Amino acid sequence: MMRSPRVEILNLGSELLLGLRTNTHLSWLGDRFARRGVTVQRGVVVDDREEEIRRQFLDCWEQGDIILTTGGLGPTGDDITCECVAGALGLSLMHDPLIETQLEAWFQQRGRILTDINRKLAFRPEGSEALPNRMGTACGIWLEKDGKILIMLPGPPHELRVMVEEQVFPRLEAKGLLGMDEGYVQIRTAGLGESVVAEKLQPLIDLIPGVKAAYCLREGMVDCRLSADDGADVTMCVLQQLANRCAAVLDVDFVCFGHDTLEQIVFDKLRSRDLTLAVAESCTGGLLSNSFTDISGSSKVLLGGCVCYSNDAKVQMLEVPDCLLRQHGAVSSETAVAMAMGVAEKLEADYALSVTGFAGPGGGTETAPVGTVFLGLHGPDGTWSQKVHFNGDRVTVKKLAVARALDWLRRELNKKDLPVIREQHAMD
Amino acid sequence: MMRSPRVEILNLGSELLLGLRTNTHLSWLGDRFARRGVTVQRGVVVDDREEEIRRQFLDCWEQGDIILTTGGLGPTGDDITCECVAGALGLSLMHDPLIETQLEAWFQQRGRILTDINRKLAFRPEGSEALPNRMGTACGIWLEKDGKILIMLPGPPHELRVMVEEQVFPRLEAKGLLGMDEGYVQIRTAGLGESVVAEKLQPLIDLIPGVKAAYCLREGMVDCRLSADDGADVTMCVLQQLANRCAAVLDVDFVCFGHDTLEQIVFDKLRSRDLTLAVAESCTGGLLSNSFTDISGSSKVLLGGCVCYSNDAKVQMLEVPDCLLRQHGAVSSETAVAMAMGVAEKLEADYALSVTGFAGPGGGTETAPVGTVFLGLHGPDGTWSQKVHFNGDRVTVKKLAVARALDWLRRELNKKDLPVIREQHAMD
Repeated sequence: MMRSPRVEILNLGSELLLGLRTNTHLSWLGDRFARRGVTVQRGVVVDDREEEIRRQFLDCWEQGDIILTTGGLGPTGDDITCECVAGALGLSLMHDPLIETQLEAWFQQRGRILTDINRKLAFRPEGSEALPNRMGTACGIWLEKDGKILIMLPGPPHELRVMVEEQVFPRLEAKGLLGMDEGYVQIRTAGLGESVVAEKLQPLIDLIPGVKAAYCLREGMVDCRLSADDGADVTMCVLQQLANRCAAVLDVDFVCFGHDTLEQIVFDKLRSRDLTLAVAESCTGGLLSNSFTDISGSSKVLLGGCVCYSNDAKVQMLEVPDCLLRQHGAVSSETAVAMAMGVAEKLEADYALSVTGFAGPGGGTETAPVGTVFLGLHGPDGTWSQKVHFNGDRVTVKKLAVARALDWLRRELNKKDLPVIREQHAMD
Repeated sequence: MMRSPRVEILNLGSELLLGLRTNTHLSWLGDRFARRGVTVQRGVVVDDREEEIRRQFLDCWEQGDIILTTGGLGPTGDDITCECVAGALGLSLMHDPLIETQLEAWFQQRGRILTDINRKLAFRPEGSEALPNRMGTACGIWLEKDGKILIMLPGPPHELRVMVEEQVFPRLEAKGLLGMDEGYVQIRTAGLGESVVAEKLQPLIDLIPGVKAAYCLREGMVDCRLSADDGADVTMCVLQQLANRCAAVLDVDFVCFGHDTLEQIVFDKLRSRDLTLAVAESCTGGLLSNSFTDISGSSKVLLGGCVCYSNDAKVQMLEVPDCLLRQHGAVSSETAVAMAMGVAEKLEADYALSVTGFAGPGGGTETAPVGTVFLGLHGPDGTWSQKVHFNGDRVTVKKLAVARALDWLRRELNKKDLPVIREQHAMD
């Protein structure tokens, strides 16, 4: 394969630097390019000031093969990307009557009049092409010069994303600048720290020359992404074979190849067997059921959940015995078990998960300090609890507890798979 | 005031460029600095490769007064920030026995053994100070050189954030590099679109020379941030007076000055009157109760919630009459009302919110297409419902529905404030 193009992304917008908004463009574009075998090499956010934009753009232009800018193409006074970039390249802006006609139609359709401030949108650098924007008013710009490609896109994510999929990627593909596959294999693990995953996998990876590994810690999971070193001749097939060996070494801590979340995996396993789930949450306050219901179609598996924050709620909603709460406390193995059984019974679910703990910063006892969480799991074979401890602030403890609960259920459902797998092995 | 320091942020981590993770460091740090009157001038993400890091770091070092790096301080092979940055500055790494002792204690406390791979964490550039990390293993680095300040922090957000609050900001403050106030006034609104907010406020803002406004659309809210133009002599007092006039024009659509979330405002209002809340969620799947329980101490107000995804759950958990569901459907005004009343009664709460709708992509009917949501509100004066419609994907519809429900309760609780405020005015 030819050398992969060097992609530089320049995000314009003072709101990204003021923290008014998180820069999701970089991760979205990075992911899209990565899935086509191209790595974004740098992402820069600069302020909407002429000198800043000019200086940074020229550096990106010098370094990159494909330079993609986002934002600053609108009609207001702080939208100066087009002028600055054209100026930096020594190009003048020209009026495009076709864009103006399209703008007039766009405004007319919406019963609005094209004002002078919006006429600015009809200018583009000489030698460029306009990329139509069917979700908004500001066109994108495509410019080829000195063997490099400049792509300028508007800032609103729903406009940018449609334009990338429908216009930018097809053009790059036609030029042979995008690969047909991802160029990497991702191994997703749960239950192990980043350094433990690296210690287990790196010796295997080091056996294959030309393969590099990137590790990424997520809430409750660690990803290892295998790819070829720059210029190394390693095929996807070799990467996948290596990934298979890594998965075997990870054993039960191996979650999946690719990008599936724990909730998606649990959902798929339950759905394929026509099994249902209910959840009862205290300290995670709804995060577990919320994660699950982000999956489209989750209502086929998740019957419902209780957020029983107060002791009274545990008694009234889940029929956790009052005396049990008084004897063992709300944050206890006994309560976790009673919650899981209670919600499973109430909703007639096959499986149930429960979470009770001290998410902090207040609460906690000597034997169960802040970060202590009891998980409960109810299934056809019985009900269990486990005690875990997490470090971090309130929101982090909630996220880690949810990941651990989902991973527990994943492991439990995997056990049911095992006999089948063993049988297959025996038949090999 | 002295010239504000130029802050450059360099985020290391190929996972940010591969789209494995969104770079939340920049927006979080940008916001923290902005609240102390300092604007981050540039944010750069580069790959974990020596030449890239070195080149970019030197550019940031040349441009900035305060250079803050995140990530790449861990024990694995791709954690090379410390070596690269020290190398670029011509400094060698030295072993710090104190860090090693602390590392040993950290591992011992957790019943783990300090492995060789982790001993790497005990090295830091000569002339630097270690910034202890009480949430994890990798220390931060503080280095002053040539009138500039280098701050290197580990990548995990919960580690970085604690270190910024507890160590970095106090040090910068002691050097007089942070302002005492934000340098801006933020007006938070709900229920209006961005252009409507601008149309209402801009005429007032244009009356005061030297004031600029930045608008930012959030889920269900629009913020307007007032600040002085570069070099303009506008005091915070003038900005606040202008903001007060803006709030008066916004009337009931004004939420607050500053950064409070809708859930925080609702929590504060309920808490101060010793009132309790319960929630019943269908299509938002736990997001409402989860948002609320991110507030520390929320258990004093939120008694609990039901996520009743299935019809059966609505019947079993909230005693929504089966015949009502059959007659009007689960997504209806009647069901929203029955859910709110049911959960209020079950948990003996003063107020209750309910949400039922079609978050999509599946579901929906001719009269209630995807994005249609019915909200229910139960309070001491009765129970109401409202029908709303949101555009967007599943997760967006969930977020907008939660914001609208909270904003409804905020408005309802505000009505109870009004007589008191009027009385005070009468006594002026």
